Amino acid sequence: MKKLPLLILLAFAFACTNPKSDTAPLVFQSDFGIKDAAVASMRGVAAGISPDLKMYDLTHDIPAFNVWEAAQRLLQTAEYWPSGTVFVSVVDPGVGTERKSVVLKTESGHYFVTPDNGTLTLIAERLGIASIREIDEAVNRRKNSEKSYTFHGRDVYAYTGARLAAGIIDFSDVGPELEQKVVTIEYQRAKIEDNVLFGNIPILDIQYGNIWTNIDRATFKEMAIEHGQDVKVRISQGDRIVTQQTLPYQPTFGEVEIGKPLLYLNSLNHVSIALNQGSFAGKYHIGSGPDWNIEIWKADVSRGD
Amino acid sequence: MKKLPLLILLAFAFACTNPKSDTAPLVFQSDFGIKDAAVASMRGVAAGISPDLKMYDLTHDIPAFNVWEAAQRLLQTAEYWPSGTVFVSVVDPGVGTERKSVVLKTESGHYFVTPDNGTLTLIAERLGIASIREIDEAVNRRKNSEKSYTFHGRDVYAYTGARLAAGIIDFSDVGPELEQKVVTIEYQRAKIEDNVLFGNIPILDIQYGNIWTNIDRATFKEMAIEHGQDVKVRISQGDRIVTQQTLPYQPTFGEVEIGKPLLYLNSLNHVSIALNQGSFAGKYHIGSGPDWNIEIWKADVSRGD
Amino acid sequence: MKKLPLLILLAFAFACTNPKSDTAPLVFQSDFGIKDAAVASMRGVAAGISPDLKMYDLTHDIPAFNVWEAAQRLLQTAEYWPSGTVFVSVVDPGVGTERKSVVLKTESGHYFVTPDNGTLTLIAERLGIASIREIDEAVNRRKNSEKSYTFHGRDVYAYTGARLAAGIIDFSDVGPELEQKVVTIEYQRAKIEDNVLFGNIPILDIQYGNIWTNIDRATFKEMAIEHGQDVKVRISQGDRIVTQQTLPYQPTFGEVEIGKPLLYLNSLNHVSIALNQGSFAGKYHIGSGPDWNIEIWKADVSRGD
Repeated sequence: MKKLPLLILLAFAFACTNPKSDTAPLVFQSDFGIKDAAVASMRGVAAGISPDLKMYDLTHDIPAFNVWEAAQRLLQTAEYWPSGTVFVSVVDPGVGTERKSVVLKTESGHYFVTPDNGTLTLIAERLGIASIREIDEAVNRRKNSEKSYTFHGRDVYAYTGARLAAGIIDFSDVGPELEQKVVTIEYQRAKIEDNVLFGNIPILDIQYGNIWTNIDRATFKEMAIEHGQDVKVRISQGDRIVTQQTLPYQPTFGEVEIGKPLLYLNSLNHVSIALNQGSFAGKYHIGSGPDWNIEIWKADVSRGD
Repeated sequence: MKKLPLLILLAFAFACTNPKSDTAPLVFQSDFGIKDAAVASMRGVAAGISPDLKMYDLTHDIPAFNVWEAAQRLLQTAEYWPSGTVFVSVVDPGVGTERKSVVLKTESGHYFVTPDNGTLTLIAERLGIASIREIDEAVNRRKNSEKSYTFHGRDVYAYTGARLAAGIIDFSDVGPELEQKVVTIEYQRAKIEDNVLFGNIPILDIQYGNIWTNIDRATFKEMAIEHGQDVKVRISQGDRIVTQQTLPYQPTFGEVEIGKPLLYLNSLNHVSIALNQGSFAGKYHIGSGPDWNIEIWKADVSRGD
Repeated sequence: MKKLPLLILLAFAFACTNPKSDTAPLVFQSDFGIKDAAVASMRGVAAGISPDLKMYDLTHDIPAFNVWEAAQRLLQTAEYWPSGTVFVSVVDPGVGTERKSVVLKTESGHYFVTPDNGTLTLIAERLGIASIREIDEAVNRRKNSEKSYTFHGRDVYAYTGARLAAGIIDFSDVGPELEQKVVTIEYQRAKIEDNVLFGNIPILDIQYGNIWTNIDRATFKEMAIEHGQDVKVRISQGDRIVTQQTLPYQPTFGEVEIGKPLLYLNSLNHVSIALNQGSFAGKYHIGSGPDWNIEIWKADVSRGD
């Protein structure tokens, strides 16, 4: 008789000290904007699944139908979230067509609930594919939503993401396992040829007008450029050279005068170009996307071309 | 002596296994924008009432003083939130005048804390009025806020909504019960006359430029239009015909070519018009409001007018 | 043997009935915008520190590098949040230079995690300095972030703020205590001279176009202006008079006709100028900042100048 209360105590101890061990962060991304109620409806569906869910926004300002930018934003932030985090990304120009609705589990233990339309291109590459399952809408769809054809974000993706984050379903309950590959968008990789570093400008740091490239720290280091050393930078859109400049590689913005350019490694450890307290993209009319490329070489080395 | 610990245990059991059964989601809407600290101050007041509250945003980008749009946004999302959810909507052009501060409880069990200035027009109609109470500011007002005349959103609405959501007050503590009606904004209802379907364009799906109407699925179904069938659509502002087109009724965007128009049922099960991956509103200069109307009839049926 | 379970019970009682007594609200402010993933990465780092944290946004739309506006927004909202709230404010034009990373504890018990670059000017004055500590990055920095030079917001400020809010570190663990002063931005204080009230326009109520001044209720009251009484208002940018008008002091907007101006005390109990349902700033091209000033005197009293 004395043992029973102690067992109950232990059960309570677990329940109390781990009051929410069964919910994971739920992070939303979309191209819906936040001026109307679309995002709120996704939040409402999730709140109805579990009042204990913690919901967050990545961004809802992805330009309409821009799957490439959705892929970039996931790449930019996912690894800073704890393993187990569930991302729901809804940029879905093909809604209603044959694109599959999937959940990707990465080797890092993150989940991505999304149409498989290129959104997973970069995150699958960075974090590794542990498993992909197609969402079985026969079970993983908001009840009584069958008559609504067009808001999968709310009725399938938010619903499934919330149930996964709340621990109501396991990953294995999502639906049938698929082959371990995702639909990918082609893009130019970083490379070094004849002492010139080639890369792409996948995205801008739009708030400040900084140029972010897909050249990572390791590739850049092969160039053996030192802090304070000048480099030549050429930025092109297709065949058109938009700007060519000489500027220093510096660890921080404060190392150059206000308004002056620099090359630095950004918070993702990628090669970036900026003006200290100014907008490089604005001043030189730089854009981003598959046709925007960058070349970098040491200022004291002449190129053969 | 042995019974006392067991009773305490039972009390703990309830407290621990239902750690937040007494809080409901608290959802904010306003025309404050999120560039300054007005919304943050509402959140702060609510956080001070209970650290356990879960707060969400509907939108804070309602155009300034646009009560009609506030009413639309509540209509668009409320039913996707669980019963018990508390909405605080502050679009209040008449702040400081005689408009009443109220809490509406709908038949669905949702609560709406707002000035009674038309904001409740559509949600009262959709979800039904269970009861309306006027907020008694003698008790339901942030302490020491009496000297501030102009921020009812923070001092009365957020304060009262948070206390209701946290279970600190019951609905009956809000204040005296009022007659079961709300201040309403007049608008044209959907109707069929001589095989023509008439409706209003209350709001645009602004992120994508889609046209949303107030014609619901049931009324549309009376027209017996099939998937794939062409309809004629005329959109007018007052007496001026802005565009007239022939386009198909389709279940999803993917059924028409990129850039082509379609009629579909949107996520609210309302008749809508869109361009696949384009902006119908932008291309044809369509607006929304009480003077923007739509007429729809079968393309193979001639009209008498 | 009977005492042990009772002691354990008491420990559980405390843990259960105060399930989150150890976490405080965590409020973010920045000039990052919400179009990319920078803010989301700060949230992710915090979510990784404790799944129980409640995170909120003040605003992320501070104009780039505008430390003055960051200071204003903190002033506008901090006192409406409960004591113990942790604010993380990252507007950091000097990132990478010698500015100190600090945590301010105010006499009101609020915490502010920020670069000490003027951001604390107004909040230190309003809420009082209890203690300031410099963040010791040897311990209070995200693990493995040493190679990233430029995102202190994520790696130091969000990380430290989250650990403080979660109760993982105490204020004394932040780092060494500094002298009790902060870096301040100079600005003109409110004053009365020869029956004229002088003040500054530090910021606009941008959503509505209202003019907010730094003249508080107490100073205004010394002018002995009554509700309904007319005042003259002169607004200048530097030496240029931008507008001079006669308008009434009223308790609420509803006391004047639509489109008409009034002087009132805003939600911060500061003197403000507005048009009822219009934009005063828009109509008369009023800006804000250190060079925008206001003078107010009774309409029935002639000035000597």
